[in-house]
Amino acid sequence: MESPIRHADHFSELRERAHETRSLAQPVAAELVARFGDRVSFARAVRGHHGTDISSYATTPPDAVVFAETTQDAVDVVGICGRHGVPLIPYGTGTSVEGHVLATHGGVCVDFTRMSRILEVNIADLDVRAEPGVTRKQLNAHLHDSGLFFPIDPGADASLGGMASTRASGTNAVRYGTMRDNVLGLTVVLADGSVIRTGGRARKSAAGYDLTRLFVGAEGTLGVITELTIRLHPIPDGISAAVCAFPTVQDAVDSVIEAIQCGIPIARVELLDTLTVKAVNAYSKLGLNESPTLWYEFHGTVRGVEEQATQMQEIARAHGGRDFSWSTQPEERTRLWQARHDAYFACLALRPGSRMVATDVCVPLSRLTECIVATQDDVARSTMPIPLFGHVGDGNFHLMILVDPDSDADTQEAWDINTRLVRRALAMGGTCTGEHGIGLGKREFLREEFGTRAVDVMRAIKATLDPRDLLNPGKVV
Amino acid sequence: MESPIRHADHFSELRERAHETRSLAQPVAAELVARFGDRVSFARAVRGHHGTDISSYATTPPDAVVFAETTQDAVDVVGICGRHGVPLIPYGTGTSVEGHVLATHGGVCVDFTRMSRILEVNIADLDVRAEPGVTRKQLNAHLHDSGLFFPIDPGADASLGGMASTRASGTNAVRYGTMRDNVLGLTVVLADGSVIRTGGRARKSAAGYDLTRLFVGAEGTLGVITELTIRLHPIPDGISAAVCAFPTVQDAVDSVIEAIQCGIPIARVELLDTLTVKAVNAYSKLGLNESPTLWYEFHGTVRGVEEQATQMQEIARAHGGRDFSWSTQPEERTRLWQARHDAYFACLALRPGSRMVATDVCVPLSRLTECIVATQDDVARSTMPIPLFGHVGDGNFHLMILVDPDSDADTQEAWDINTRLVRRALAMGGTCTGEHGIGLGKREFLREEFGTRAVDVMRAIKATLDPRDLLNPGKVV
Repeated sequence: MESPIRHADHFSELRERAHETRSLAQPVAAELVARFGDRVSFARAVRGHHGTDISSYATTPPDAVVFAETTQDAVDVVGICGRHGVPLIPYGTGTSVEGHVLATHGGVCVDFTRMSRILEVNIADLDVRAEPGVTRKQLNAHLHDSGLFFPIDPGADASLGGMASTRASGTNAVRYGTMRDNVLGLTVVLADGSVIRTGGRARKSAAGYDLTRLFVGAEGTLGVITELTIRLHPIPDGISAAVCAFPTVQDAVDSVIEAIQCGIPIARVELLDTLTVKAVNAYSKLGLNESPTLWYEFHGTVRGVEEQATQMQEIARAHGGRDFSWSTQPEERTRLWQARHDAYFACLALRPGSRMVATDVCVPLSRLTECIVATQDDVARSTMPIPLFGHVGDGNFHLMILVDPDSDADTQEAWDINTRLVRRALAMGGTCTGEHGIGLGKREFLREEFGTRAVDVMRAIKATLDPRDLLNPGKVV
Repeated sequence: MESPIRHADHFSELRERAHETRSLAQPVAAELVARFGDRVSFARAVRGHHGTDISSYATTPPDAVVFAETTQDAVDVVGICGRHGVPLIPYGTGTSVEGHVLATHGGVCVDFTRMSRILEVNIADLDVRAEPGVTRKQLNAHLHDSGLFFPIDPGADASLGGMASTRASGTNAVRYGTMRDNVLGLTVVLADGSVIRTGGRARKSAAGYDLTRLFVGAEGTLGVITELTIRLHPIPDGISAAVCAFPTVQDAVDSVIEAIQCGIPIARVELLDTLTVKAVNAYSKLGLNESPTLWYEFHGTVRGVEEQATQMQEIARAHGGRDFSWSTQPEERTRLWQARHDAYFACLALRPGSRMVATDVCVPLSRLTECIVATQDDVARSTMPIPLFGHVGDGNFHLMILVDPDSDADTQEAWDINTRLVRRALAMGGTCTGEHGIGLGKREFLREEFGTRAVDVMRAIKATLDPRDLLNPGKVV
């Protein structure tokens, strides 16, 4: 369990692979061209774009990119890949932080950005049927004036297919749940080219094995999602945002635990450590107090959000919170949450030219303070800038370790910090990933978290659904 | 798709099987006795009890009953059954309405009522670790004074293991979700005797395939649950209950749709048709208006529930609701919800000696009125009393068809009504079962709902995890 992992090797290997000029066997390329015409690309730039995400992994391009427009397109590319034993990688917006889209085994990338139709909004039923390339901002813009919204918000303007595949969540999850909770059903192309629908539009069902939840979080390794039915939520009458600075991270976290135990239905509660506040101040031109800070959002009736903010303020004050300020002005709220979403870029700007290794542990709330405090020791010893922020209402927080992507020493150090952090979280009953997924880098942790036999069960399911290991091979299991 | 299903045959077959005196091969019985001593029973009465649920299916006893006390007991009985190719059926409280515990293939029933320890309550984390035999009332009694409660409430005092296995929900699901949403992790004994843990105590995780959700709702066919970690919720400061009578079922349902679209966070909203109100009045000595009625519960701050009830009252009035009365008195609330839970017995009393065939469709909210109205035509034509009630906030409602258990004509008629109802619900994008599960009687519907290929995927998963089909065989797939 406690063996050191030499992650730097893995990174170097990816970097080498990035410079290979692999190519598809001629018959495969010919079949793709015959079927997809100018919707298949072998261009170096296109392939490079599709072999890159926002992690620190080196670009690892696929051999070809197919731009799918229909479920039948997906069926046909699965068929061609299947006949020739070529890997296939579904691609949404490339905003993974875990190397999900990297073509580590080569093969064909299927880009879903052209499958971005919103097929049906059912206002009375609070649901929507959409294609996988629809992004969360596109969906919310489309819902404008419907009185409904889609709450899952991982920061990036990710695609619904990608978000389902990584079981994404984000700032609103403490109130509205994750993609696990909000996907009603999926249309999935299986490895043999058959198409199944995993659920209807009923708000609950006890019918059969939960195939929907099996594909949500499978990271494209069990099937290719070509349509989603998703729950929406009513836009509350009252929304207010608040900010409060605390003397220490511990004080901030303790106040959140108390609020959740009291049943205050906080819609968002985000922790930013001092370094993150500094980065955000500089990047987004905010004048926040430079100490550990919580950002809140409350949803409810107009009176209800007032009541929630007042309760929260009292709790914050009892934990040393200062200058609790709240606002119901949409502009101020937007400015605040835009700054939160830009935290990624704000942090990167702390070390120009750096790339990010993002940690993603999630622990029981009662252990969160202890986990963060122990981690801060590692952070203090590091040579790299490491801002910390997170979704503390869920017990989920991130270190953004800013590595020089060409430095094996940085990469190894980042990996060591993450390994210690994950083992600390697992010892506390937590998980190695709250919302980013396993991807390439956490496969070893999956085994530590669940044990060999449970991962064997996952592998057996993978082998049952994709016996030739062609769907996003090398990820998850 | 539209072929008639001669369900009466199935019932007759079960009735015949009930009178068989099947017995385990001597070596199996001997091994069970050697291992479990007086914790294995072959007594007719014990076997009969364990081959009975609250549906109208005839008692179908197992060949032996083992009373498990530890996970190791479960491992050993799985081992013995595995070595001899004997089926195994997990048993909680026998309150299934879909024949889940019936030993249609004989074998050994594993009774979990002695595994009823509550192992750990984590107040700060709002979770509990418990054995599968713990019942929901036992858990809530244990939580007394903790400020927390377990909201899932299917009416019966079911066991946590059974509730997880059937993906149970009930009156609170509109606010708190179902067992799918509230199980954090499980300890499961697999068919090969190995033991896995499917999740930790983090409130969310994106780590690997969602094995927890695979076993939740698997009805004991994929593994044997021996421990659960479950989310709890803070008891709200304010709780109020309300009752309102409506001119028609349609008016009542329409008011609920409007309330949900407005985002009123109703904790419970139950529809009772006129016949159910009559039954409940008679059985529980209430003096309710005998017309379609909604029962509500609101959870929040003291001011918040007042606000919710006021909003709800306005909406109800706009839909013809009369005599909206609400109360924050615990005694009145308890009296009301006890009566709701007793609705099962109240309805049975409408036809002495009858047994129940319970339908369980769940449809998108916008189709609920249409579905109920069309169904009422079938109900009006029937010779049997058929009260209707349900969890309308979820789009889920039940007919309680009161059959003479010895009448094949009744059984066939009930089956025909259910078949038409299920097909109606499926055509509306709904499901054949919102919360009862597939069990014996809905296997044909599973195929109609998901299509052959999706059910083949479920079968393939079953074959992977239980290749010899020994875990609760004949159920689900």
